[in-house]
Amino acid sequence: MKAITRQKFYRQVDPEAWEAAGISPLNQFVLGFVLLSIAIAVLQSESAVRSVAPGFFIWANWCLAVSFSLEYGARLWIMGENPRYGGSRGRLRYALTWASLFDLFATLAIWIDVLVGVPGIYGVLLRLTRAIRILSLTRNSAVGMGIRLLFKAVAGRRVELGLSLVLAVLVLLVASVLLFLVDGRSQPYSFGSSTRAMWGAMATLTTVGYGDVYPVTAFGKVLAGLTAISSIAIVAMPAGIMAAAFSDAFQKLQESKG
Amino acid sequence: MKAITRQKFYRQVDPEAWEAAGISPLNQFVLGFVLLSIAIAVLQSESAVRSVAPGFFIWANWCLAVSFSLEYGARLWIMGENPRYGGSRGRLRYALTWASLFDLFATLAIWIDVLVGVPGIYGVLLRLTRAIRILSLTRNSAVGMGIRLLFKAVAGRRVELGLSLVLAVLVLLVASVLLFLVDGRSQPYSFGSSTRAMWGAMATLTTVGYGDVYPVTAFGKVLAGLTAISSIAIVAMPAGIMAAAFSDAFQKLQESKG
Amino acid sequence: MKAITRQKFYRQVDPEAWEAAGISPLNQFVLGFVLLSIAIAVLQSESAVRSVAPGFFIWANWCLAVSFSLEYGARLWIMGENPRYGGSRGRLRYALTWASLFDLFATLAIWIDVLVGVPGIYGVLLRLTRAIRILSLTRNSAVGMGIRLLFKAVAGRRVELGLSLVLAVLVLLVASVLLFLVDGRSQPYSFGSSTRAMWGAMATLTTVGYGDVYPVTAFGKVLAGLTAISSIAIVAMPAGIMAAAFSDAFQKLQESKG
Amino acid sequence: MKAITRQKFYRQVDPEAWEAAGISPLNQFVLGFVLLSIAIAVLQSESAVRSVAPGFFIWANWCLAVSFSLEYGARLWIMGENPRYGGSRGRLRYALTWASLFDLFATLAIWIDVLVGVPGIYGVLLRLTRAIRILSLTRNSAVGMGIRLLFKAVAGRRVELGLSLVLAVLVLLVASVLLFLVDGRSQPYSFGSSTRAMWGAMATLTTVGYGDVYPVTAFGKVLAGLTAISSIAIVAMPAGIMAAAFSDAFQKLQESKG
Repeated sequence: MKAITRQKFYRQVDPEAWEAAGISPLNQFVLGFVLLSIAIAVLQSESAVRSVAPGFFIWANWCLAVSFSLEYGARLWIMGENPRYGGSRGRLRYALTWASLFDLFATLAIWIDVLVGVPGIYGVLLRLTRAIRILSLTRNSAVGMGIRLLFKAVAGRRVELGLSLVLAVLVLLVASVLLFLVDGRSQPYSFGSSTRAMWGAMATLTTVGYGDVYPVTAFGKVLAGLTAISSIAIVAMPAGIMAAAFSDAFQKLQESKG
Repeated sequence: MKAITRQKFYRQVDPEAWEAAGISPLNQFVLGFVLLSIAIAVLQSESAVRSVAPGFFIWANWCLAVSFSLEYGARLWIMGENPRYGGSRGRLRYALTWASLFDLFATLAIWIDVLVGVPGIYGVLLRLTRAIRILSLTRNSAVGMGIRLLFKAVAGRRVELGLSLVLAVLVLLVASVLLFLVDGRSQPYSFGSSTRAMWGAMATLTTVGYGDVYPVTAFGKVLAGLTAISSIAIVAMPAGIMAAAFSDAFQKLQESKG
Repeated sequence: MKAITRQKFYRQVDPEAWEAAGISPLNQFVLGFVLLSIAIAVLQSESAVRSVAPGFFIWANWCLAVSFSLEYGARLWIMGENPRYGGSRGRLRYALTWASLFDLFATLAIWIDVLVGVPGIYGVLLRLTRAIRILSLTRNSAVGMGIRLLFKAVAGRRVELGLSLVLAVLVLLVASVLLFLVDGRSQPYSFGSSTRAMWGAMATLTTVGYGDVYPVTAFGKVLAGLTAISSIAIVAMPAGIMAAAFSDAFQKLQESKG
Repeated sequence: MKAITRQKFYRQVDPEAWEAAGISPLNQFVLGFVLLSIAIAVLQSESAVRSVAPGFFIWANWCLAVSFSLEYGARLWIMGENPRYGGSRGRLRYALTWASLFDLFATLAIWIDVLVGVPGIYGVLLRLTRAIRILSLTRNSAVGMGIRLLFKAVAGRRVELGLSLVLAVLVLLVASVLLFLVDGRSQPYSFGSSTRAMWGAMATLTTVGYGDVYPVTAFGKVLAGLTAISSIAIVAMPAGIMAAAFSDAFQKLQESKG
C-alpha cells in the first residue's frame, strides 16, 4: 500500500487529522456501527426480545466481534501515521491511551459474550465512549461548534456549578439528619438512620417522590415541605448559572465571528 | 360572483394573504369552530359524558362533518386566487400540500365516525394542525410576533438544544444499563433488562417518579440518587440555553424597532 | 375630629395616599391582623386543633368579626377624604370597588361563621386579596420596587409566557389523546377516555407523577417517556423567557437610577 | 513559645488572618477531620453498620471527643493573637460568638454520646457550620471567588427571591384551601382540613407527588392540574431572577478584572 493511500486512510480514521468540516465518511460509518452494536446489546438483554430470534443475536454478536477486532487492529496499524504514535513503541503508547483501552475492553466484552456466554452489556458503556469521542472531535460544523460551546459554558463556570452541587449535597445531608431525628422512631425501616433517611430526603429534594417512603408525622411533613420548596432553589441556582454562562458564551462567539 | 368579492373572500380565507394585523374575522370563526370540534371529540370519548346526551353528539358530528366538508371545498375553490395554486393543476397541487391533506383526513375521520361509528378522536390531532397553522400565520400582532420570537429563539439554538437532548438520552441509556446490572437480579420484572430498566431510569431522570418501579438495593438507590441529581443538570442546561437565546432574541427585536 | 387629624388618619389608611417609604404603621398593623385571621381560619378547619381549644376559636372569631366590621366602617368613612370617593355617592362608589366588596364578603363570611356555624374558610381567600393589595401598593421601598419589578418583567412578556402556556396545553392535549388511544383498552378506568387520560398526562407532563395512574403497555411507556422528556422543554421555555425578562428589567432599573 | 511561632500558628488557625490563596494547611486538616467526624456520626446512626464494628465507633468517638476538645482549647487560646479577642475578656467574647458556641455544643454532643450514650447525630448539624465557615472564608482562590459570586448574586436579589417565595406560599395556601373545600368531604383523612390539604398541595406544587395523597373528584383533579401547572411558574420565576442576577454578577466581575 502506497504512502499516499495510507495517509488518506489515516485521515479518515483519526478524527483529529480530518481537516474538512464534520466527520469523515469512514468515521460516520464507524459511528453508525457503534450505535447499532449498542442497540443490539441493549435489546439482547431483554429475554422477551432474545427469545424471538435467538439465532440473530448469536450471529450478530459474531459479526460485531470480528468487525470490531479487525477495526481495532487496522486502527492500531494506521495510527503509526500519526507522528505521536510512530514506530512500534508509539503504537504501544497509543494502545495504552484510555480511548484505545476502552475500545479493547469493549471488543473483549463481545468476545466473552460470544465465547463464554456472559452478556455483553458491560461493554456497552465502554463502547459509548467511542461514540462520544468521535462526536466531540468533529470540527468546523454546527454540531462540533455546539459541543464546544456547551463544553466551554459548563467548564467556564465549573466552580460555581460545583458549589451549587455542594450546596445541594449539604441540604440533602441536613434534610436526612433532620428526617431521621423527626420520623426515625415512627418509621424505623424508612427513616431509622441518617443513611436510610437519605433515600427519602433525595426523593424529596430532587422532587422525584417515588412514594415508597414519605414522612407521616406532622413535623416530618413540615420538614419534607421545606425540603421540597428548597428544591426550587437547588434547581434555580444551576439554571441561573448556566443561563448566564451561555449568554456569555454566545456573545463571545458572535464577537469572534464579527 | 365578481372578482373583487372573490378577492376579498380569498384574503379572508388564506392567512398568508391577510394584510391587516392579527387573524381575519373568517379565520377567527374557523379557529373557534376547530377548537369546538376538538372539545366535542375529546368529551365524546368519555362514555360518562356521551351517555348524558348521546343524541347531541350524533347531531353535533353530523353538523361538523357537513361544515368541514363545505369548508374544505370552499377553501379548495378559492385557493385558485393564489397565483401559486391557479388552475385545476394548481388546485391539485394545493390539495396535496400537507396542510390540505391533514384537513382532508380530519374531515374524513368525522365522516367515518358519523357513518361507521369509529370514534373521531383520531382526527383530533390532524385538526389541531389547522389551529396551529392559523395561529402561526397571524402577523403584525403581539401574538404573531410572540410566536415568531419563540420560534426564532428555539430555532437559532436548535443544535445546542439538540445536543442537550442527546446528552439526556445518553444519561438515560447509561442509567438504564447500570440499573439493570445493579437491580436486575433482585427485581427481574422491573429491572430485568436494559429496556425494562429504561422505564425506571426515565421516571427518575425526569423526576416523574410514579412509584411503580424503584430500586431496592443499596447500590441501586445510590445510582437512582445520582441519576435524580443529574436531572438537575438535564433541566438546567436547556433552561440556560433558552434563557440566553431569548435574551438575544429580545435584544435584536428592540434594535430592529429602535 | 379636626380635618388635619382626619387627613393624617386617611394617609395611614389608604396605601395610595401614603407618601413615605414602605407601608404605613396602621396598615402594617392591619396586614398583621389579616394574616392572623387567615392563620386562625386555616387552623380552625383542622378538627384536631379546634377540639383542643374550641372556646378560643369562638372567642377569636367574635373578636375578628367585630374588628373587621369596625375597620370596614372606619375605612368607608375615612375614604371620603380621597377626592375620588368624596360625598355619600363617592363612598357608595368606593363600597362597590372590587377591593371593598372582597373586604365586605370576607367580613360577612366571619359573621356567618360566628352566627350560623358555617366554617369561615371561604372568607380566607377574599381576605388574602386585602393582604396582597396592601403589599402591592407599598412604594419607595425594596419590597415595593421588587413587586413592581416582578410585575413589569412578567407583564412585559405576557404574550410569550401565554404562548408557552398554550404550548403546554397543546402537548397535554396531544399526550392525553395518544395515551387514550394506546392504553385506553388495557386500563379503561385510568385511560378509558381522552378526559380521563388527561389526569395521567398532566401528572407526567408536570412531572408530579402521583403514581395512581401510569401506562402499562410498552407503547404507553414510550409515550409517557416522551411526554416526560418534553416536560423539560415545558419548564425550560418559560424559565428562559423569565430570565431574559428579568435581565432586561434589571438593566432598565439600573439605567433609570444611574 | 515565641511570639513569632504563635503568630504563625494563629495565621494557620484563623481563616480571616490567612493571607495566601485558599485555605491554610492546618484548616485543610481540620476541614477533613470535621467531614470525617460527620461521616462517622452519619454511618453510626445506621444500626446495621454499627453492629459490624461496634468497637470501632466507640474508639472513634473517644478520639473525636478528645481531638475536638483539644482543638477547641487551642483555638480559644490562640485567638488571643487576634486584636479583637485579646486578653481574658476578649477570649470570653470569642467563646460567646455563634461560631465558637456551635463548636462547643458540637464537641459536647460527642462527649454526651461517648459518656451517656445519646447518639451524637445532634452535633452533626452544628459541626457542619464549622465546615461551611472555613469554606466561606477562603480567599483569593477560585472556590472563594465562586462562593462570593453565588452569595452576591443571591443577596443582591434577595427581595425578588423572597417575593417569589411569598408568591409560592400564597399559591400553596390558596391551593390548600380550595383542595380542602373540593375534596375535603370525599377524603376526610387526606383533605379534611386546610392544614391537612397543605400536604397534598405541597406535593403537587413542588411536583414531588409522593402518591400517598391525591384528589379523586373531577374538580379536585382539575384543581391539582392547575396547581401543578402553576408550579412551572413557581420554578421559572426564581430561575429567571437567578439567571439575571448571575449574568449581572459575572459582568461586574469581568469589569473589575479588566
